[in-house]
Amino acid sequence: MVRETVVLGHGSGGRLSEQLVREIFLPAFQNPALARMDDQAVVTVNGTRLAFTTDSFVVKPLFFRGGDIGSLAVHGTVNDLAMGGAQPMFLSASYIVEEGLPMETLRRVADSMGRAAKACGVEIVTGDTKVVEKGSGDGLFINTAGIGLVPEARTLSASKACPGDAILLSGPIGDHGIAIMAEREGLRFETPVESDSAPLHTLVESMFAAAGLSAIRCMRDPTRGGLSSSLNEIAAQSAVGMRLDENEIPVREEVRGACEMLGLDPMYVANEGKLVAIVASADAPAVLAAMRAHPQGRDARMIGRVTDSNPGWVTMRTAFGTTRVVAMLAGDQLPRIC
Amino acid sequence: MVRETVVLGHGSGGRLSEQLVREIFLPAFQNPALARMDDQAVVTVNGTRLAFTTDSFVVKPLFFRGGDIGSLAVHGTVNDLAMGGAQPMFLSASYIVEEGLPMETLRRVADSMGRAAKACGVEIVTGDTKVVEKGSGDGLFINTAGIGLVPEARTLSASKACPGDAILLSGPIGDHGIAIMAEREGLRFETPVESDSAPLHTLVESMFAAAGLSAIRCMRDPTRGGLSSSLNEIAAQSAVGMRLDENEIPVREEVRGACEMLGLDPMYVANEGKLVAIVASADAPAVLAAMRAHPQGRDARMIGRVTDSNPGWVTMRTAFGTTRVVAMLAGDQLPRIC
Repeated sequence: MVRETVVLGHGSGGRLSEQLVREIFLPAFQNPALARMDDQAVVTVNGTRLAFTTDSFVVKPLFFRGGDIGSLAVHGTVNDLAMGGAQPMFLSASYIVEEGLPMETLRRVADSMGRAAKACGVEIVTGDTKVVEKGSGDGLFINTAGIGLVPEARTLSASKACPGDAILLSGPIGDHGIAIMAEREGLRFETPVESDSAPLHTLVESMFAAAGLSAIRCMRDPTRGGLSSSLNEIAAQSAVGMRLDENEIPVREEVRGACEMLGLDPMYVANEGKLVAIVASADAPAVLAAMRAHPQGRDARMIGRVTDSNPGWVTMRTAFGTTRVVAMLAGDQLPRIC
Repeated sequence: MVRETVVLGHGSGGRLSEQLVREIFLPAFQNPALARMDDQAVVTVNGTRLAFTTDSFVVKPLFFRGGDIGSLAVHGTVNDLAMGGAQPMFLSASYIVEEGLPMETLRRVADSMGRAAKACGVEIVTGDTKVVEKGSGDGLFINTAGIGLVPEARTLSASKACPGDAILLSGPIGDHGIAIMAEREGLRFETPVESDSAPLHTLVESMFAAAGLSAIRCMRDPTRGGLSSSLNEIAAQSAVGMRLDENEIPVREEVRGACEMLGLDPMYVANEGKLVAIVASADAPAVLAAMRAHPQGRDARMIGRVTDSNPGWVTMRTAFGTTRVVAMLAGDQLPRIC
């Protein structure tokens, strides 16, 4: 059942978001590329396969430890392209500014965005600026859309996971969400938690270089909704089960502590510089080695396997040796995280 | 000089918008495609020339006579692609929703957007939804980015206007802005003013079919900032003058009346279904005839000529026989018009 008004949870990246897409947007916009519900569409123009993606960023605060809305907007879109196997090329940048925003804030964000794009080797080629009255926005929202080139023979899809496949995670989870919460709640840590906001496209390229043809079934960057939501999406679309091992899922000590204090589960906390990949078992060791050789994948691990039992369900062997179901995020754990 | 805070005028599409782009965004994002400051970037991917554009829509109210934010978002992006000579193909749709928006409103907008896309022959292939807390947004903002294919030999640019070229306008100006103002201010007309929101890509195709190679120098859809701002941009970038004839610029009676009442100049009022084209003199009659044969160009006129005198200035012979300068929009005439 669809609720009568939009609630914060509809933007969570979890179950309510998915419901909104299925009940409002898919029927309205019906087309096969959208119906695949990947983080990017792959379309063919004049024989060239392009990935195309969009994301709006409403993160609060605008600046946080490890990044800001500008660099985040670049990394988020670069990563959505990379998760489709695409080489990111061009971005758009559209700003919705609330009247009264200090010009210096706008300049800092734009400069950061420009630096992030340069570091990623992408160009911000088109843009737009709208201004809304004081009280009708919240400082600054940024939309980035992106275009990338999908090399021949790369056809990733969340429907391609097969029983026996390895589930590879590129590093510790929960850093971004906890860094944002720390800013908002004024939390102090002995070792401050930084957002992991980072581009993943070169990591992806080195994974493809190490893998056999079609060994990489699909990839996701577990942003809103966290690792659990990404894996649940894949399990559902491939009609397979997944069995995770909690001991293999890295979580920084400070992040684990903050989660306990805030009553959060790191499996649902957003990441902005991590990926999870479903990889054919035979190729998994080589892909994992390639990940570990890359700065963004130093702490990569195999965290579980795709199973033929319990199709559509993700389960986890916990640190205590019990088994629990890892469901999709139901409400909204952390609003405006990206 | 850049102001210290962002004001509504920075979103006007006029002089302040241009200043913001020149002083903040161009230095931050520096690259040649963006520096052309067209309504779309033309980039080459794998040998294919693509147009790429983005626009955020913050129009208030969401529904108005002749359209709504959903259809407007499709038409605006389709038109930005068409103005670059591109054939629109794929759109993205990113929604920023304020908590509490009635689900029925969201559904109406999405359905309208889907219908508009279908009517334009484009597909909405990728999307995103963010939700912000009540009071941090204003109902609904939509960003659309778009990709189109630019056929060989079409190289439009605002820097290509030549003295002697004809200035062709596709129909009466000011309808969209006045329709929005009428909703907001509760104005009543004997004949209600409807937004002209409409896709222009098939009109553009028929113009190209009628024109010799490179006869169409450039096109603009005069949205925010109105006809005057579009022509001033071209005059500046081509370092040419423009001489308009006010008697040839069609304005509906009701629109003229509303402008007088509200103290507005129709030359600065937004349009969402009109284009202005700079066309080589020899080809102008054929292009104008093609425009008039198309439903979106029935009332097309030649409204003036490009001159070598007064480079960078647009002047107009008024209905009274005097001459006046038509400057770029200085402040913000009508905020949140699109």
